Parts: sequence; C-alpha cells; structure tokens
Amino acid sequence: MSSPMNGTASVPQAALMRQRVEVHRGTNGWYADAQEDLLALERPVALVYNGISHAVMMASPTNLEEFALGFSLSEGILANVDECYDLDIHEQPQGLTIHLTIASQRMAELKQRRRSLTGRTGCGLCGTEALEQAIRPIPHVMAPPLSDAAIQRSLRELSAHQPLQAATGASHGAAWCDVWGNIKQLREDVGRHNALDKLIGALAREASPLGEGFALVTSRASYEMVHKCASVGIGALVAVSAATALAVEQAQASGLLLAGFARPGRHLIYHRPTSAAMAHG
Amino acid sequence: MSSPMNGTASVPQAALMRQRVEVHRGTNGWYADAQEDLLALERPVALVYNGISHAVMMASPTNLEEFALGFSLSEGILANVDECYDLDIHEQPQGLTIHLTIASQRMAELKQRRRSLTGRTGCGLCGTEALEQAIRPIPHVMAPPLSDAAIQRSLRELSAHQPLQAATGASHGAAWCDVWGNIKQLREDVGRHNALDKLIGALAREASPLGEGFALVTSRASYEMVHKCASVGIGALVAVSAATALAVEQAQASGLLLAGFARPGRHLIYHRPTSAAMAHG
Repeated sequence: MSSPMNGTASVPQAALMRQRVEVHRGTNGWYADAQEDLLALERPVALVYNGISHAVMMASPTNLEEFALGFSLSEGILANVDECYDLDIHEQPQGLTIHLTIASQRMAELKQRRRSLTGRTGCGLCGTEALEQAIRPIPHVMAPPLSDAAIQRSLRELSAHQPLQAATGASHGAAWCDVWGNIKQLREDVGRHNALDKLIGALAREASPLGEGFALVTSRASYEMVHKCASVGIGALVAVSAATALAVEQAQASGLLLAGFARPGRHLIYHRPTSAAMAHG
Repeated sequence: MSSPMNGTASVPQAALMRQRVEVHRGTNGWYADAQEDLLALERPVALVYNGISHAVMMASPTNLEEFALGFSLSEGILANVDECYDLDIHEQPQGLTIHLTIASQRMAELKQRRRSLTGRTGCGLCGTEALEQAIRPIPHVMAPPLSDAAIQRSLRELSAHQPLQAATGASHGAAWCDVWGNIKQLREDVGRHNALDKLIGALAREASPLGEGFALVTSRASYEMVHKCASVGIGALVAVSAATALAVEQAQASGLLLAGFARPGRHLIYHRPTSAAMAHG
C-alpha cells in the first residue's frame, strides 16, 4: 500500500495531533495573562471505496491507514485486510481523503447495502438509516479467561501510553492487552469509535490473535463499541466508564465478556459467558 | 403536536431511561454475588421528515420531541419550531420512529441538500458526506458577558440536575444557565450531541432568549458542539472537559465565547470575543 501521509516520516505523529493556541486561565475569579495550550486536532476524514464516497468522520489525523482498515473491518465492509488492495491518503484544505481499492466482491456487497437503504445522509450509525438496519446481526465470539490482576495491570499502564491525552486532555484511547494485562498496542483519537477502529486496524495488520487478550477503552461501552469488537473477533471489552443497556444485550448475544467502571482496585462485570473463567487474584 | 410517547404521562421519564441488570462487582481480586445495577437505555431513534427517512441515531429514549426539534434546528433543517407542523413518535420493536411534518420550503431544501450528496450512508457528521460539505458555514453569534462566579455556580448545581447520570454513570448532560449561573434547563442522553439537541429543542419550545445565558455541557467541546450552539444563536459554551482545535476555530469564526475544563475553582477560556466582558469575581 502507498501512503503519502505515513511516508512523511520526518513529521512525528504527535505533531499531527495537536495545535498550539492562546488561552486564558481563570482561577478563583482571576484571569491570568494569555498562555499557550496544546489542543487536539480534529479534521474531517472522508472514506472513499473504489471511487465512491462512503462517509466523512471527524478524527485525529494520525494512524489513518489503520483507521480506514479498522473501520472497514469493524463495519463489515471488509472481511480481512487482504481484501484492501490499495490505500492512498490525500490531504486537502478541507480535510483528508482516504481512497481504498477493495475486492470487487466486497464492493458489490457495499453497493447492495447502500442501494437497500431507503433514507439518505445518515448520522450516528454507519451504513444504516432505517431502523431495521440499525441493529446489525452480531457474530459469536470466544471470550478469553480474564483476571482482576490483568485488568488492574492494564489500568496502571494506561496513562503512559496516551501522549495525546496527556498533552491535550481531549482524546480517547483504545488499548489491546494480553491476558496478563500488558498493553501491546494503544491508539488515540478525539472520538472513541475512531480510537477503537485505529486499534482494530493496527491489530489486523499484525494479524494479532484476538482471542488471547482484551480491549481496554477509556470511554463508556455503548452499542457500537461492543459491536465493533465482536465484529472482528475480540472476545473481551473492558471500559473505564459505564456500559449502556444495549451494550450488555449485545455482549450477551455475542458471548463477549464485558466489564466496566474499571478503576484502581475494582471493576464491574456486566456479562461473563459461562465458558470464560474469571480468575481470582 | 400529538405525541403518543409523551402522552403516556403515567410512565415517568426516568423509567424510560434505565434498565435493571445483574452485575458482579470485583474488588481487589474478589467477586461479589450477583447484584442489580441500573443501566442507561440506548435505543435506535429514526428521524423521518415528510415521510422520508433522514437519520437513525442511538439515543436515550426520553424527551424525544425536544430531541427531534433540537436536531432539526441545530442541523439547519428548520429555521424555527413553527416550521414543524406535526410530530408523532411511534414505538416499534426495533426502536423509535419520529415522524415530522415540516414546511414544504424546508423539505425542498432538505431534498436539495440530499441530492447534492455524492456518497451514501454517512457516519459521524449529519447530512454531509463529501469533505466540501463536512464543515458547514457557521453563523455569527453575540456572546453574553460571563463571570467566573456564574460558571462556578452552574457547576455546583450540575449534579443535582442529572438523575440519569446519578443512577447509571453513563450519560451526558447539557444545561442552559442564566448569566448568574443558575441552571434553568438540563437534558440528559447517552450521547453528548443528543443531550445538547434535546436542550436546544426544549429552549426553542419555550422561546428562551439565547443571548442571555450560556450552555454548560458535561463533555468535551468538539466541532459539532460549537456548531450546534452557534447555529441556534447560543453565544457561550462552557465544557467540563477540553476543546478540540477545530472547536476553537469555529468559536473564533462565529464569535462564540468558548470555555473548557470548567472545574471547581477554575476554567480555561479558549475564545472570548472582544465584545464579551469576562467579569471578575
């Protein structure tokens, strides 16, 4: 794959993620003189499949190849990365365009999916505009055994892997952890869905075995987060914040182990399939 | 307007917002027996204008009239609430459908907007799929004077107005505050954009003067949050968390006063138009 963006190796990823602005700090009613602050960049990113525009999302403009691949996999447009033959990223004044060349069979399916939509201009859900299509079928996954110690280890490691969040306070992180809780990969984005898609793209390129570990996200666990994980075979999702009722229903339907409120010393198990042991200690 | 959902006055709104599930609490490596926990409901909500499906969003199924009106206004589909002639909410097994009957001129404009889209099945941005349309023009607004004391007062009042968040820990809040920081309205939703749209809908129905107060949101301030506020004439937005670079650019373009990291005793001013005084004390 060619990628002009990733080809500019002299530009560090971190530089693409933030921007200096002048701010005024107010403390107990008094305002300091203007200071510089780092803000997370947020740019429109368009995904174009075989020449046809599919979606525009607001995203942190880094790891864009992984983002495009992860989105394509987690939304069921591609079944595996080999079905993406080429990927090019073009910078424009208005934003970034990612052109993907995908297998003709997958493109035919995508066109069919688009033709079957009755409405137009969706928002909030990808590729669905009518209610019948809003809740896509979720595949069954195998949940790994997961220990409290592993969750705690991953939480302790989390902040060291989030440079954008440390600099700006405005980004989400999605991490892939092994069964002992060691963070193997982490991706950041202003959007929580995007962070997870970038992680999924990174894991897919490495052909990581997704049955042997868990995803840790710094956000809540909503419907889409559970669905994206299960769609690519991730068997366990741990969220720092709460889960929604629909996320728990989806975890039950797919057999995904879902934990939330992961904090120092504690967490909450929303769904644990009987096949997945929850080790003590 | 008729509304079957809001018509069921015997069902408290709070009951529509949460669901009991069985969870297991893990503390320092030990798991308690199953306990009941309250989860925020999240359901697909379809918006249909004059019979044509426009978007499906995942939302907390409350204040749906306000949600539909607020979304229509903040996305520029309607210019004022009087252009919505009828609004009906239908519950289906798959989710909720909100049917709006809008002025024919507005419907013609919406159809034109949809025809001009080259791609299909959007995600993340409403009604935009090509980059050229991703960043819509933002109107100019008049920022009110805003004091540190007002921001602090609104923060102290916040949690008392968030019953869903108190029960589930999984929802965002968007509040309308007067210039002294008294919270006049607050709406909650699993999604931060939805919470703001519900608030905008509520304010529009009351014909609240939007130049005399500020919006307080429990989330970050991203592009969409600033754009939605400015689109309906809200002149000041205070976020509990950080702003993105694009949000600050949009605030500068529209003249909106944008503050972030609003916490006890402090906040950060990202943009303050010269016309808006920042009162001390």
